[in-house]
Amino acid sequence: MADAITPRSEDYSQWYLDVVKAGKLADYSPVRGCMIIRPNGYGLWENMREALDQMFKDTGHENAYFPLFIPESFLGKEAQHVEGFAKECAVVTHSRLTVDPEDGTLMADPASRLDENLIVRPTSETIIWDTYSRWIQSWRDLPILINQWANVVRWEMRTRMFLRTMEFLWQEGHTAHATKEEAVEEAERMLQVYTTFAEDYMALPVVQGTKTASERFAGAVETYCIEALMQDGKALQAGTSHFLGQNFAKAFDCTFQNKNNELEHVWATSWGVSTRLIGALIMTHSDDQGLVLPPRLAPTQVAVVPIFRNDEEKAEVMAVVDRIQRELEAKDIRVKVDARESQRPGWKFAEYEAQGVPTRLAIGPRDVKNNNAELARRDTKEKTIVPQEGLAERIVALLDEIQQHLYDRAFTYREDHTTEVHDYDTFKDVLNDKGGFIVAPWDGTDASEAQIKEETKATIRCIPFDQSEVSGTDLVSGKPATHKVLFAKAY
Amino acid sequence: MADAITPRSEDYSQWYLDVVKAGKLADYSPVRGCMIIRPNGYGLWENMREALDQMFKDTGHENAYFPLFIPESFLGKEAQHVEGFAKECAVVTHSRLTVDPEDGTLMADPASRLDENLIVRPTSETIIWDTYSRWIQSWRDLPILINQWANVVRWEMRTRMFLRTMEFLWQEGHTAHATKEEAVEEAERMLQVYTTFAEDYMALPVVQGTKTASERFAGAVETYCIEALMQDGKALQAGTSHFLGQNFAKAFDCTFQNKNNELEHVWATSWGVSTRLIGALIMTHSDDQGLVLPPRLAPTQVAVVPIFRNDEEKAEVMAVVDRIQRELEAKDIRVKVDARESQRPGWKFAEYEAQGVPTRLAIGPRDVKNNNAELARRDTKEKTIVPQEGLAERIVALLDEIQQHLYDRAFTYREDHTTEVHDYDTFKDVLNDKGGFIVAPWDGTDASEAQIKEETKATIRCIPFDQSEVSGTDLVSGKPATHKVLFAKAY
Repeated sequence: MADAITPRSEDYSQWYLDVVKAGKLADYSPVRGCMIIRPNGYGLWENMREALDQMFKDTGHENAYFPLFIPESFLGKEAQHVEGFAKECAVVTHSRLTVDPEDGTLMADPASRLDENLIVRPTSETIIWDTYSRWIQSWRDLPILINQWANVVRWEMRTRMFLRTMEFLWQEGHTAHATKEEAVEEAERMLQVYTTFAEDYMALPVVQGTKTASERFAGAVETYCIEALMQDGKALQAGTSHFLGQNFAKAFDCTFQNKNNELEHVWATSWGVSTRLIGALIMTHSDDQGLVLPPRLAPTQVAVVPIFRNDEEKAEVMAVVDRIQRELEAKDIRVKVDARESQRPGWKFAEYEAQGVPTRLAIGPRDVKNNNAELARRDTKEKTIVPQEGLAERIVALLDEIQQHLYDRAFTYREDHTTEVHDYDTFKDVLNDKGGFIVAPWDGTDASEAQIKEETKATIRCIPFDQSEVSGTDLVSGKPATHKVLFAKAY
Repeated sequence: MADAITPRSEDYSQWYLDVVKAGKLADYSPVRGCMIIRPNGYGLWENMREALDQMFKDTGHENAYFPLFIPESFLGKEAQHVEGFAKECAVVTHSRLTVDPEDGTLMADPASRLDENLIVRPTSETIIWDTYSRWIQSWRDLPILINQWANVVRWEMRTRMFLRTMEFLWQEGHTAHATKEEAVEEAERMLQVYTTFAEDYMALPVVQGTKTASERFAGAVETYCIEALMQDGKALQAGTSHFLGQNFAKAFDCTFQNKNNELEHVWATSWGVSTRLIGALIMTHSDDQGLVLPPRLAPTQVAVVPIFRNDEEKAEVMAVVDRIQRELEAKDIRVKVDARESQRPGWKFAEYEAQGVPTRLAIGPRDVKNNNAELARRDTKEKTIVPQEGLAERIVALLDEIQQHLYDRAFTYREDHTTEVHDYDTFKDVLNDKGGFIVAPWDGTDASEAQIKEETKATIRCIPFDQSEVSGTDLVSGKPATHKVLFAKAY
């Protein structure tokens, strides 16, 4: 049987870890804070990567690869950036191991001490802008629209699989532009790409907005973000896109000759999403039986379990299963037939349920006789007996229906858990009793943002793009609101 | 104009670097020994990765991801392995930077010294076998057929772009089996996958064989390899597959209960190819005008250069170019139309030549009038005027022809540069005058292998699978040969 899963109502954090484990998504590693992404989890990431990569290429971007290591001195060149990243990074200081003469174990060879330490990249703005400063001379060299798929390391103290790990996989786009307008447009375009991906592929409704100054990326002029709401009423940032102004161009002396033969600093953006999105997927759709995956991203969309008691039944069942497999694959459906005889059908049902496979077919001797199959859907757990004829078309339609249903369910949850408040007492009550997003007036100051965070642990997740009806007064200062913002406790 | 390329006859090493640079494949980075893979180079790697990944999946493998960091103590668990890798590795010793009170620069914060150093993975056998020891209990858990696409770091002293870099991208397969036979079969199967990939995709003829004991992977019982010959007469190892026996299972105490309820150590393989293959591609096919790429891997297969002098000509030329682009894309040909007006056609011709694009179309007003186009092929530099009608079919056939031609040309070169010798003087003459592969008798001892290496710098590249006609005596010992082996100087 699949591993037992703690109910959400009992212990939400343990439920999350149980879902990850039972879904065979990831495992702990001997390196604190680093996880092992198992084939089920990596297959999910491959599908996410493929969809995003195509969207990046469709918007004119190319992939490249920059070094894992960043010279220590680079990190110090942009003042805010070093502030944001120097406190949690992996520092390479030696290039060789040797045997410790005292105890015979391995140790860093003192003779191999590096002249300059290297940092394992926490993000690549510095090394990329150093490079761009050599690649860019004239307006003819612009724009540069590059993305990188890579691993990055941030030395986090408290880690949780997928949501916050020391090493994680991500993509980071880094673009260079001749004008501010073009760079802002790019940052906004990529936020829209992330929104489309979250909603259409992950079935994850998101709110678009900008971050407040205190929540901005270290080195950004403006951080655009999409925010999603998890089932426990906490928010999760599902993607960010940064307008970096000329900050990195100035730090790395990256200039270009414009069409009027004047030298200008280049304008920049960067944008990224990571394996953290897998955490968002889990917490948005899964239930007490385990993982629930949106069909468009599920590594397996249909698990087929043949049922037989002897070789004769096996032969007749497998003949039908083979034909159905071919029919499904002809429709580009990702099928897995599990004909293992070492495990019983009931074990397999529980296994694929825990792995979040959107639909399951069971086919036994009686189904063969009646030209039927049992079709189960993971999201609602409904089972129906359906004719074999037209099965592939039926499953194509059902996968679409499940994809939409997951989105709708998450959307309804979010709407039900978004509350507009106008005073601080109500704010605190809602935060404690109901959770979710709280829409509230804000006076635009760091001071009231900081006070609310200090007193309630809620942060401003974003200033939504839609600022059509700003009214009321700030929750703590009582001053007239300049913005209507989204508060929540967050991951 | 594209950067000038040093002729091979003048300076082969410089030619190689010039081809990399003019082809916009890669660039130096500020971190010694690490390179930046530019979009042209990365696009090539993406195509290689996609083809290999499909072949891995077709042979039953799944992808997963293991941590970048390996605890220092793990490296010491397999005696030969630590010998092979501890001398050149990146050692992480601290987790934080702070400001140096003496000079205000950044430094590793002494308070963040790690309890145990972490090594940036040079290869992942140790961390993976530690994991497998937790995943495997019974024969039912076997085989495990996992591959990983990752970056690895080896602290090389002398680096050359793609061929030998401190960080490189690769894939590493790590499989676990219940029997020796099954593991050996897997190692041989993956060597065959590499062979098919090298020959059918890279147009790279290879010799299959096994390594001698002294050239084996650190920790392997048997290393299978494919060896290719470069244009300068030096050999390059193009892929290895290792039968690891039970060495890592023993080092990490990985056992399983077999069908007879007995506890046994698990049998292992590992196999990998890396971005080094891009170096092999360059040195096999390219010429003094720059890169030549096999069509099946080229990021762009057809570069289309429209030629016009005014808006009227532009309109009529682009109408034809747009139609041809659609026709080519309908045949799944990777097309790039370069309609930039900031560069002249001649500049573009040289540019795509240097980038190794297999075919080029030029279309001007006269071609529009005559329903023609100028079609150039990169490998032979032939240009022909061809009718627009049936152009897509023609190019499909031409790309196949170029693919075959590149293979044939490389095969002929290799045959012309493979010499069978039976005495040491001839061996030295051939090695110095002609280079290439030298087939010679060997007595199977480390001693004569080491002496030849010491005296001539030639190494035994492999013991070819074909050992049908072993005869003669060892070149230095004079003892009867036990093997017929392939010598060469190598990258």
